[in-house]
Amino acid sequence: MDQPVFRLAVADDLDAIVGLLADDAIGSQRETINPKAKRSYETAFEAIQKDPRNSLHVVVIRGRVAGCLQLTFMPCLSNRGGDRAILESVRIASELRGQGIGRRFVRYAVDLAREAGCVQVQLTTDKRRVDAQRFYATLGFTRSHEGFKLMLGPDDRHT
Amino acid sequence: MDQPVFRLAVADDLDAIVGLLADDAIGSQRETINPKAKRSYETAFEAIQKDPRNSLHVVVIRGRVAGCLQLTFMPCLSNRGGDRAILESVRIASELRGQGIGRRFVRYAVDLAREAGCVQVQLTTDKRRVDAQRFYATLGFTRSHEGFKLMLGPDDRHT
Repeated sequence: MDQPVFRLAVADDLDAIVGLLADDAIGSQRETINPKAKRSYETAFEAIQKDPRNSLHVVVIRGRVAGCLQLTFMPCLSNRGGDRAILESVRIASELRGQGIGRRFVRYAVDLAREAGCVQVQLTTDKRRVDAQRFYATLGFTRSHEGFKLMLGPDDRHT
Repeated sequence: MDQPVFRLAVADDLDAIVGLLADDAIGSQRETINPKAKRSYETAFEAIQKDPRNSLHVVVIRGRVAGCLQLTFMPCLSNRGGDRAILESVRIASELRGQGIGRRFVRYAVDLAREAGCVQVQLTTDKRRVDAQRFYATLGFTRSHEGFKLMLGPDDRHT
């Protein structure tokens, strides 16, 4: 297999990244490659690029974007004031799974977090992603927490 | 009961916040009110205050800090580029639990997230915190994700 290259995402990668997010049993319910939605993805991409604590990364194989992830550094008081890293939106193209690319990609991100001085890396994965749960366990992650989400709409103020 | 006041934390609240983090069955294993550790908490506090996407909040009752939480806004590509909010280190003083203070405090934070344009609020809570899990479910949060953590040490590079 050609060696994968891990690097920061650039603007030209955006269509491929959104394609990866949409090409997914769960993600396809909420993502779209509709051109009308493109501006909102571009806005988010620019916000991530401007924020020194946020970064998007891709894995490139034979010149093609084959995976993506977001890395967020979060200053925190708990754990004696140690920064933590959050891994988000980790995706590998479906036809390239099972070849160890995701494993090397996550290790690349964990190394970035360590080099930045983070004391821990955390992530959540949908309970339906059983393969992902096994994958993170084999990388040494501990399934210690329950992950809760609350979707917000403009009309559901509750106070 | 005197009305709780919800507000941004200031530097003078820091000792009380660290006290809340340490006064906890799980937190007491990792937090310390040892004066030598104070500088690392102060550094984290300053980093949070300087970051426009991070903020610490307290609930004050009769002039006393009775609870704390951290709110982080995270620009994200998924969910069509909508920002999400992360709730972290939510604590209410043990002797003041069960009075609805935490419920109002979390709703205050959710309202801040909504006003900032976030499309969702997410959090993780230790699987051992059964009361917390029930609490977030009654606030409308869905327990949809598994939360994984990897602690980082300086000597455990794996690539």
